Formats: sequence, structure tokens, C-alpha cells
Amino acid sequence: MNNHALLTDLYEFSMANGYLATLPDDRWAVFDVFFRTVPDDGSFVIAAGLAQVVDQLKDLHFTAADLAYLQSLGLYQPDFLDYLAHFHFTGTVSAMPEGTPVFAREPLLTVCAPLIQCQLIETWLLNILNHQSLIATKARRIVAAAAGRPVMEFGARRAQGPDAATYGARAAVIGGCASTSNVLAGQLFQLPVAGTMAHAWVQSFNDELTAFRSWAKVYPDSASLLVDTYDVLKSGIPNAITVFKELQAAGHQPVGIRIDSGDIAQLATAARQLLDQAGFPNAKITASNSLDEGVISSLLEQGAPLDNFGVGDKLITSGSAPVLSGVYKMAALTENGRWQPKIKLSNSRSKITLPGKKQTYRLFHPHSKTAFADVITLADEELTAPLTVTNVDPLSTFSQLTLTDFVAQPLQVPVVSKDAQPVETDVLAIQERTQKQLAQLPAATKRLVNPDAYPVYLSPKLAALQQELMKEHQQ
Amino acid sequence: MNNHALLTDLYEFSMANGYLATLPDDRWAVFDVFFRTVPDDGSFVIAAGLAQVVDQLKDLHFTAADLAYLQSLGLYQPDFLDYLAHFHFTGTVSAMPEGTPVFAREPLLTVCAPLIQCQLIETWLLNILNHQSLIATKARRIVAAAAGRPVMEFGARRAQGPDAATYGARAAVIGGCASTSNVLAGQLFQLPVAGTMAHAWVQSFNDELTAFRSWAKVYPDSASLLVDTYDVLKSGIPNAITVFKELQAAGHQPVGIRIDSGDIAQLATAARQLLDQAGFPNAKITASNSLDEGVISSLLEQGAPLDNFGVGDKLITSGSAPVLSGVYKMAALTENGRWQPKIKLSNSRSKITLPGKKQTYRLFHPHSKTAFADVITLADEELTAPLTVTNVDPLSTFSQLTLTDFVAQPLQVPVVSKDAQPVETDVLAIQERTQKQLAQLPAATKRLVNPDAYPVYLSPKLAALQQELMKEHQQ
Repeated sequence: MNNHALLTDLYEFSMANGYLATLPDDRWAVFDVFFRTVPDDGSFVIAAGLAQVVDQLKDLHFTAADLAYLQSLGLYQPDFLDYLAHFHFTGTVSAMPEGTPVFAREPLLTVCAPLIQCQLIETWLLNILNHQSLIATKARRIVAAAAGRPVMEFGARRAQGPDAATYGARAAVIGGCASTSNVLAGQLFQLPVAGTMAHAWVQSFNDELTAFRSWAKVYPDSASLLVDTYDVLKSGIPNAITVFKELQAAGHQPVGIRIDSGDIAQLATAARQLLDQAGFPNAKITASNSLDEGVISSLLEQGAPLDNFGVGDKLITSGSAPVLSGVYKMAALTENGRWQPKIKLSNSRSKITLPGKKQTYRLFHPHSKTAFADVITLADEELTAPLTVTNVDPLSTFSQLTLTDFVAQPLQVPVVSKDAQPVETDVLAIQERTQKQLAQLPAATKRLVNPDAYPVYLSPKLAALQQELMKEHQQ
Repeated sequence: MNNHALLTDLYEFSMANGYLATLPDDRWAVFDVFFRTVPDDGSFVIAAGLAQVVDQLKDLHFTAADLAYLQSLGLYQPDFLDYLAHFHFTGTVSAMPEGTPVFAREPLLTVCAPLIQCQLIETWLLNILNHQSLIATKARRIVAAAAGRPVMEFGARRAQGPDAATYGARAAVIGGCASTSNVLAGQLFQLPVAGTMAHAWVQSFNDELTAFRSWAKVYPDSASLLVDTYDVLKSGIPNAITVFKELQAAGHQPVGIRIDSGDIAQLATAARQLLDQAGFPNAKITASNSLDEGVISSLLEQGAPLDNFGVGDKLITSGSAPVLSGVYKMAALTENGRWQPKIKLSNSRSKITLPGKKQTYRLFHPHSKTAFADVITLADEELTAPLTVTNVDPLSTFSQLTLTDFVAQPLQVPVVSKDAQPVETDVLAIQERTQKQLAQLPAATKRLVNPDAYPVYLSPKLAALQQELMKEHQQ
């Protein structure tokens, strides 16, 4: 990861320069990252990108070339450029670990730092979290649709730039993918890499059988053959079977075939029969043409005998919903050294922000392994029963609830501070965490189509503080 | 741009290793980059990304760490790893310059190189061209909708990773955007940068008027004020007018206001009236909430008095169509030192590839400044009238046409070879080229909704060669 100090909207620099000129008391602020809607009408997002955020924050600095460029814009004062020359992050960050399912309005990451620093890190921080969480969320959906069959991430060539391919592959594995085709992502993040051959291999030989035989000679123990260059059933499968028999006779175990075009369900069914009849019931069938969670669900519903899925552009761009609209909003600010909670009003009730420094808890009934709700509280608030909480969604019918008996699991942990917990960087360990966290959610919340809304509540103190600040501003 | 040698699908390495083991004669191949469909049902794509492709190709190499990683996969032979250790690109590349409008099936870039090299550069080459061309194409649409009003690219925080933000900003300017908010893109590509303040600025002061006054003090000659933190018409505009009067009294020219929420048309109309009445008819109104070409067209149709647009996630992700499905297909291969044209068949007639090394021409009637068709030919074919051409679309009603009098402008130029033309790297010069090239297309082809299909033909020799190879494979 490069130093992305300049991957910042111009207005962040302009505001920072303005703060330095007009608010010399070095105010501190608290900013929350959260989102209001979930892509694909899902009910939650899988948090991802934290390892990169923390890594980058530690190294964030402005080079001489950066400063020269900023100076060339003619907008900023010398003392601001001098401030940037000595910039390093001195605040704290707490966040939900990667792999956590996060619901709308919940602060997935919170920064507490001098106001200028808060402002200067906004753009790249949102960029990383929005991107990786988007792809992890999409991967979770696609992996759920595959119902236990391995999903391989194949999208590098259609990703939105090199980073999108590489960090996207990382996020896809966090969301549950078994492997990626992207070798750079494999190298950087120790991800399993996968892939077989392209049509060009078959075209490079005089005929398909020679192409398959040549492949089997080089990869006798990992031969997976692409059977749709000419005609799947008339040539691809028969040629593959010929080569599989030769491999078997030589003591090798053929891996399987891949179908990348045509009607996958029909071709896979016919291919399965031919492979079974030829004595290869263990040869796997991989499908890989324009797949997403909808197509995979539909193919499996139809009974298509598929063993693996290679998913390309619809995963790596989250094609049906390519944006996670995470925002970064001020929740508190010091004034003469004292913290003041802050709110951003809006004509739309649901867009009004949650003031103050906060924590989010996942609630379980005692002895239950399935969570029943989340509650957002002020950071220093103790949760003791009975607790009357207010639904974060102002349109909710059952807007209040009194909780009498519950176990509360805090979701944010300190990641940059003196008491920071080490951030997990092993992507397969994060993937395992995702699975464990998902197992704690109600099945209805995880449904891909029309999921049940999972309730998120505000604690009594947080709800009261929000009300109070709204009234103050309406006067 | 980093060295992206490992930003490559695993199967490219596996095929390259296989070629080396089974085709020791070092065959050469020709591969074309083209696409079959245009995002957003448009009629053409704006080519972008070539400067990065050429730049990277020159530097492409595998480091010791790369080789160690590949070796650790346990798939490849020592002589292949040795080949990679000495890898550098020795082939040639021709391409349409950035900013060229490209139609479906036209080779926008062609590689001629040893087969192994062709294979090893596929993934990152497609990644770069697909991404940047996608965003340039979307930008062209949004800029066309804005009908002469400047469009600023504001999407960094919602882009799909750091590169998507930065190279996306470059592509957006190629497509016609006036500026970007992304300072890194500004620095790397000398793009104009723009931006004012966020809501956090207003929240950081005790009241909105103080916030605006403080801003005006720091930026007296570039004060553009965000007026929707609390209430646009009740507080934002009146406070802005107070500050504009103070600026005017001090001899400064206020720039304008920005509206980022609510009903933009209604608010802008009311804001315009208030600003005019207060004596600021030159104060600009900028809109910036969830805009794309559809919303902008609709706002302008309604008569909203808007002067500038700030466009975020729907531009930087091409939100309504986030994938350009560019492919990279073999068109020719040497056999015993002689070139053989190659074809990839498909059940779908329109997916059958165009064999041989090719060139594409844009055709004009003599003395006309507007092109009437493109024709794809074999590279060494001379275009002389009369010329009977065949529509590339097999479903076209008027499948053949005889051209008697035309001027033909070649679209591909050599960019990596002994006779290579220097690739333009000045993004504003590329933007100008885009505008000139667009001016040559019929208005009906540029329409945003339901554009007229622009005809693309095959030359007689290319059409005959395709027929011949189809028959050969069907035997």
C-alpha cells in the first residue's frame, strides 16, 4: 500500500488550511464512518479494509513533492504547508474488526483526533472502507447462493483499476470466496490462487485434443480442461474424456472441466452424464460465465450439477450495486477543551446523525447463540437491565422496547491507541471470523431476497441526547 | 504506476509455462482488444488508458520476490521461472489513441508478440483499458447532459479503491470533465483540481454565519459556500448573501454557492431569485447530490438555474453500468514461421471473432466533416472504390453496401514499435482530441437515450477470410 496522503479531496486541504487560520486552539473532534443503506437491498454489510486503514494511518505523511504540488496551487498559507511537512497522525481509532456484519447507522469506525487531522484522512479512509466492504458484502451473497460449493474470484480484467482487482480479491476472500485468480493478490495477502486455461490455449494447437493432451502432459495432477472453445458436447467433453482416460491409465487423477458459455444448466447436466458414464464421477464441473448470486441460485434451483463457480465482473465490481455509500460525519468537537456532541440535521428524519462518542453492542438472549438486536450507546454508558431502547429507524412500528435479560457483545475495539488490540491481517483468519459472526445472525436476516430487517436500537442516553440537540437547533 | 507483472490471472502463467514446455518453437501471435456491447446502451466507448499501458509495458519485469512467490506455488518448471527472470516485452502494439470514440467489435488495441508474452500481459492490460475507457465513456455522457456547464469529478471517497479514484479522475477528464476533487490525480496528471467546503466546516463553528465569514476571510477571492447544513432558504442563502455583501464591500468578487441535498431544482430556483435580488447575478450555483446524466438532463429540462455540477459515485464507478466487457482474443498465430489467421467460434453468430491482423477506418463523404461509417479491414488491405462492404452485425437489415466515393481515416496507430508515434500524455490535450473526434460523429449516434446505430462494416477480404475459417472449422 502506498502512502495516499494526497488521495484526498481538495476541500479537505482547504478546510484544514482554514481551520489552522481561524481556529488556532487546535480543537479535537470525533468522526464516525457509517452508511445508511445496504447494497442489493441486503440487510447488512461485511466490514473490510481495516488492516489497510490502520497500516496507512501509521505511515501517513506528505513528501517534499506533495508539498511543492500543494504550494503550486496558490491556495494555502506557508504555516499550513509547514504543518503538513510535520504531519503525523496523533489521534485514536476504534473500529469493528474486518468480517463483522454491520447494520445501517452503526459506526463501523470512529476517529478521535485534532480536527485538522480528522479532516485530512477522510477521503482515502472512506475510499478503502467503502470499496472493500462493498466487495466483501457482495462476496458473502454470492458464496451464500453457492450453498457450500467453492466460489473462485475471477474478475481482475474487469475490475475498476489495479487496486480494485487486488484489494477486491482480498475483500472477496473475507466475504467467503475460496480463492482468486489474481496472482498479485495471492502474493500480497497469502490468498489461495486458482485458474486453469483460456480459449487461447486451445486455439494455439492444431486441434482441441492435442491442446488437452499437451495440458495434461504439463499438469497431469491438476488438469482442469476448458471444454467450450468449439462445441461442448460434440468435441469438448469427448476430447476431455479421452485425455482423462489417458491420465487415469498413467496413474493420475483428472480434476474436471470448466464451461464458460452457452446454457450452463443444460450443458452441465449433459456433461455430468457423459463423465459419469465414462467412469469419472469425481471429475468436477466448474461454471464461469456472467455469474452472480441470482444466476447461481437459479442454476442450482434447476438442479444443475455444478461443483465450483468462477465469478468475474459481477463480484469484483459488485455489478448490481457498485457503491457502498459510507459517510464520515462529525459526532463531537472540543470547545475550550471540553467535548461538545455535534449533530448534522436534515429534512429527512432518518438522515439526522447520531451525536457523541459511541459504542455498538450485539445483543443475545441468555444461552442463545443467535443475536436478536443491536444497540448503539454512548461510549461511557453502562448497559443494565431493564433498558428501554428506541429503534434507530424513526419509521419503525415498534419504536420502543424494554430489555430485561440480555448479554451484550461490544462490536468496536480500539485499533489505534495505547490500548489498541492488534488488527488481524491473516485474511483466511478474517474469513473464518466472518463465518462465525454470520452464524450468530438470524437466518431471515441473511436471506438474499427480501431479508427480514434486523432491529438496531438507540440506548436511552443516546436517544435523549439526539432529541436535545435537535431541539436546540430548531430554536 | 507500479510494475503490475503479477496483476495477472494465474492461468496466464500456467498457459505460458505450458507453451514453453510444449511449443518450443517460440510462436508469435496477434491478439486484439475489443468489446461487444457498450455500457448504458450507448453507441460507442471513449478509448482511455493507453498511456498507462504503454508506460507499463516498457517497464514490465518480474522481481526476485515475484519469482520466489511463483516458485512457491509448486506449479512451474525451473526453465519457465528462468524465462520470467529475463522477461521483457519484445513485441509491437498498435492502438487507437486515447479519446477516440470506438464502436463494438473494432480492435481498439492490437498486440503482436511471442505467444507467451501475449498471454502474460493480458490481465493488467484489459484491466487498465476496461476501467479507464468505462469511466471516460460515462464522463462523456454526463458532460453531454450538462450541455456546456462544467462538470467536476467528486467521487474519490466512493471509488472502488485508490487507483479507481485516481485513474478514474484521469479518465473522467479525458471524457470531458472540467476538474477533479482528487488532489493525487491533480498531481500525477496535471488535472485542474476543485472543491469548496464540507458540512463539517460549518459544524465546526458556533453558527453558520461565523463559519461562512471565517471561510471568506481565508478565501476572499474564491469563496463558494455550502448552504445546506441547516436550512438552505431560511439560513444558508441569507447568511451567504450577508457574507457576499461584506466581501463585495471589501473589493472581492464572491464565487457562489453549492447545494448538496433536498430538491435541487426548487432550491436552486429560489436561491437564484434571492441572489439576483441581493445584487449577485454572477454568483454561480453548483449542484452535487447523487447526480448522473439522467438527473442532470431532468433538472435542466425543468429549467433549474444551475451553473456547475459536482458528480460523485455515479461517475467514478459508472454506477448504472459498472463494467466494460473488453476482451482480448487471438487473431493470428505463426506456424513454422508463417502467419495463420485464427478464429474463435461461438453458437452466437455475433460472438465469432474477426481473424487476422486488422486496421479500422473512419469513413467520410468527400468534403463532409461528419463520418458516416467505420470499416474494419485486413492490415495490409488497400481501400479503393468501388468497395463492397458487409455489416459487422449479422442481424443488420442492410447487410451489404457498395462505397463509391469516400475518404478513409485510419484509427489505429503504432504505439510500441520502431515506427511508433509518441503517445500523448497531456490529459487536457487528450480531452481536446476527444471533443474533436466527437464532433465528427453524427448527432443521432451521440444521443444519450436510444442512439442511432452507427454502421461498422467489414472489408471484402476480411469478410471472406472470416467465412473461410468458419467453414474450415465446421467441417
